[in-house]
Amino acid sequence: MNRSILFKNARLAENAGFADNKVFISVINGVIDSISTNAPEDTSVYERIVDCRSNLVLPAFYNTHTHIAMSALRGYGENLPLHRWLNERIFPAEDRLTSEIVYAASMLSIAEMIKNGIVSFSDMYMFSADTARAAIECDVKANISRAVVAFDPTEDPRTSTRVQEAIALYRDYNGAQDGRIKIDLSVHAEYTVTEPMCRYVASLAKEYGTGIHVHLSETESEHMEGIGRRGKTPTAFFADCGLFDTRAYAAHCVYVTEEDMDILKAKNVSVIHNPVSNLKLGSGVMPLDAMLEKGINVALGTDGASSNNSQSILKELQLAAILHKGIQRRAEILHSDKLLSLTSLSGALSQGREDCGKIAPGYKADLILLNLNTPHNIPCYTPSAIVCYSAENSDVLMTVCDGRILYENGEFTTIDIERVMYDAQKAFAIYS
Amino acid sequence: MNRSILFKNARLAENAGFADNKVFISVINGVIDSISTNAPEDTSVYERIVDCRSNLVLPAFYNTHTHIAMSALRGYGENLPLHRWLNERIFPAEDRLTSEIVYAASMLSIAEMIKNGIVSFSDMYMFSADTARAAIECDVKANISRAVVAFDPTEDPRTSTRVQEAIALYRDYNGAQDGRIKIDLSVHAEYTVTEPMCRYVASLAKEYGTGIHVHLSETESEHMEGIGRRGKTPTAFFADCGLFDTRAYAAHCVYVTEEDMDILKAKNVSVIHNPVSNLKLGSGVMPLDAMLEKGINVALGTDGASSNNSQSILKELQLAAILHKGIQRRAEILHSDKLLSLTSLSGALSQGREDCGKIAPGYKADLILLNLNTPHNIPCYTPSAIVCYSAENSDVLMTVCDGRILYENGEFTTIDIERVMYDAQKAFAIYS
Repeated sequence: MNRSILFKNARLAENAGFADNKVFISVINGVIDSISTNAPEDTSVYERIVDCRSNLVLPAFYNTHTHIAMSALRGYGENLPLHRWLNERIFPAEDRLTSEIVYAASMLSIAEMIKNGIVSFSDMYMFSADTARAAIECDVKANISRAVVAFDPTEDPRTSTRVQEAIALYRDYNGAQDGRIKIDLSVHAEYTVTEPMCRYVASLAKEYGTGIHVHLSETESEHMEGIGRRGKTPTAFFADCGLFDTRAYAAHCVYVTEEDMDILKAKNVSVIHNPVSNLKLGSGVMPLDAMLEKGINVALGTDGASSNNSQSILKELQLAAILHKGIQRRAEILHSDKLLSLTSLSGALSQGREDCGKIAPGYKADLILLNLNTPHNIPCYTPSAIVCYSAENSDVLMTVCDGRILYENGEFTTIDIERVMYDAQKAFAIYS
Repeated sequence: MNRSILFKNARLAENAGFADNKVFISVINGVIDSISTNAPEDTSVYERIVDCRSNLVLPAFYNTHTHIAMSALRGYGENLPLHRWLNERIFPAEDRLTSEIVYAASMLSIAEMIKNGIVSFSDMYMFSADTARAAIECDVKANISRAVVAFDPTEDPRTSTRVQEAIALYRDYNGAQDGRIKIDLSVHAEYTVTEPMCRYVASLAKEYGTGIHVHLSETESEHMEGIGRRGKTPTAFFADCGLFDTRAYAAHCVYVTEEDMDILKAKNVSVIHNPVSNLKLGSGVMPLDAMLEKGINVALGTDGASSNNSQSILKELQLAAILHKGIQRRAEILHSDKLLSLTSLSGALSQGREDCGKIAPGYKADLILLNLNTPHNIPCYTPSAIVCYSAENSDVLMTVCDGRILYENGEFTTIDIERVMYDAQKAFAIYS
């Protein structure tokens, strides 16, 4: 497979430069070589010529905050207050997780993501090597981190099993698959870490050149208790520990202050917006438009399938597109044209993939074809509005990652979907 | 077609009475005859035996507030403040509507609804006879009303063209299709009607025995200006005009007061919750849980496709299921088991269809089969959570209305879908 494909009759959801909506996208060796209204003279180099008539062509989606193995716990312990859900259901169930369950659940979630047009995810969890194995097998991109927690301030961070697991994960998997797999470091959250551990992980990130993945100010109580504990906000605490001196991405950020946002902007921290999870868990609403006005890089994440319950960036986008308009009662904010980049370019940046997330020459060929020939996408006066307001996951006809077709017309090329679903059901049976 | 079907191996999303999840649902002549764990002795009566293994069986959905012909304006004039969107885009475009466009748009929306598991809709718009024709052709249920407006207080309501159209619609279509088509009367909203007109329409509803469909307190300005105009809330104004002395259903109700809710409950008015539209247009959030605590009958609606942009009750349900938890920061409210009836039983009641909306003996066979054998619905610990949080429209495998299969595995039985999409594109070309 030379990963060279010619897409013809392509209508780009972004990119107003091509008004006639019938362009040729030439992909050579997995990279977008040219976009043109003229057909290339020599088409013998392409292993496939794909006709995109009746489709929108979009950059593929990036799911930049998730715990993909939590698909094992989708719908497990619903309708409870947050603390009861965590303490009575999720934590005891997680205690029973095994390598086998995490692998089966990771495969299931990656299949779900690929069919939903997602080619890359940022994961923070446990048994992370099993998640990495699954990502490699399915041939997707992933930034994977072992979540580090530390509760004993007298503990020497260097002796922490979790840190050792995180370093082993880095040594075993970072850079695998031609760089599609990256290993980042992770501090779970301000309330689950000691200051020495936080500083130590920051130093490791610098040493290894990794990114940092954190949960940040997801709930008001977490934010306020953090201030009580540290004498400063969780954002300021992380910044002071040096955690934001590397490429960093912070999930949720529902309760960050104006000053926190200034820190996040100054430190180039990417904020990961998880609107579905924030609503479902009763956390609240992140100030998305304020973040964007500050120039913060905001990407989208699904969070785990136990608090969502999907791995769908399209759903996050579509909720983000209407939620803030409704809460602020301003229909004119967050223009649909501007929101599209949150699903792709911003996500790629948060993962340190500067050559991804955009349909432009020189960028990796990560793209999806979206079906317009379906009742809910007719008429198409405004392509970005189709994506932000009416498209469905099932409209994804093709998912392409680095020029490899991972999914086409309901068929997976790297996954035996029937087996993955069977294995998942079997592995999850201990929770039934 | 005798509309007799046996569904076997059915797993019901509601109905805890059948713990083993493998029941037989016997439909005879379009009506649910029995639900049993035992197979019927004589199966010769059935024209079809449908195996529901790997499916959830749900009551079909009711879309109880929409303007289905607005699919012609889906995505037309996005990202504008409400008044500019209406005045610069929607009103001028509606002025160009024709009978042909309304019929084509109605067919398109009904196709979208059927594939999304919707068997019945409540429509308020113009060229309503064309919408009725489409509903008859597609063999769905509908409560259709011609929206009445009146701005001149000296006008004699009896001479209003719109009232005459509404009455003609009633005479031509009420009770058609064995009662599947009902014609209701409609007052567009408090701010678009005079008091004499409101009282006259109330008297007509009593005379003809129809229901009443209104928009009510959708935006704060509308609600407050109504109080300024009438010296009472829009709810109190409508009640005092006698509009609620018949079966009535009121869309939006975002800004109703505590006293308004008491009136709605006392008058048995159904409230139609349209959360997607309310967010997208920047209107706000209806107090759903307060309404339900009062015992008000709340059903779901999509509103028109220009403010949504889908005709999907599943999307409304899934937004309602998380939005209120998030805004109130209480993850435990609105239990997924309890929300399911909003999509069906409450909708049927709002339409005056007391024998619909439930999978139980004696009820009309309006049901859908939902695919569980897909990555995003695995595992299924909590069937109602699948419906409220992870299912997608494309999971609808079969839509059954009055025992007629309208949709099965992507195929429509009453609609030539390619032609409907072609005709719609052609009819909508004047807006491109």
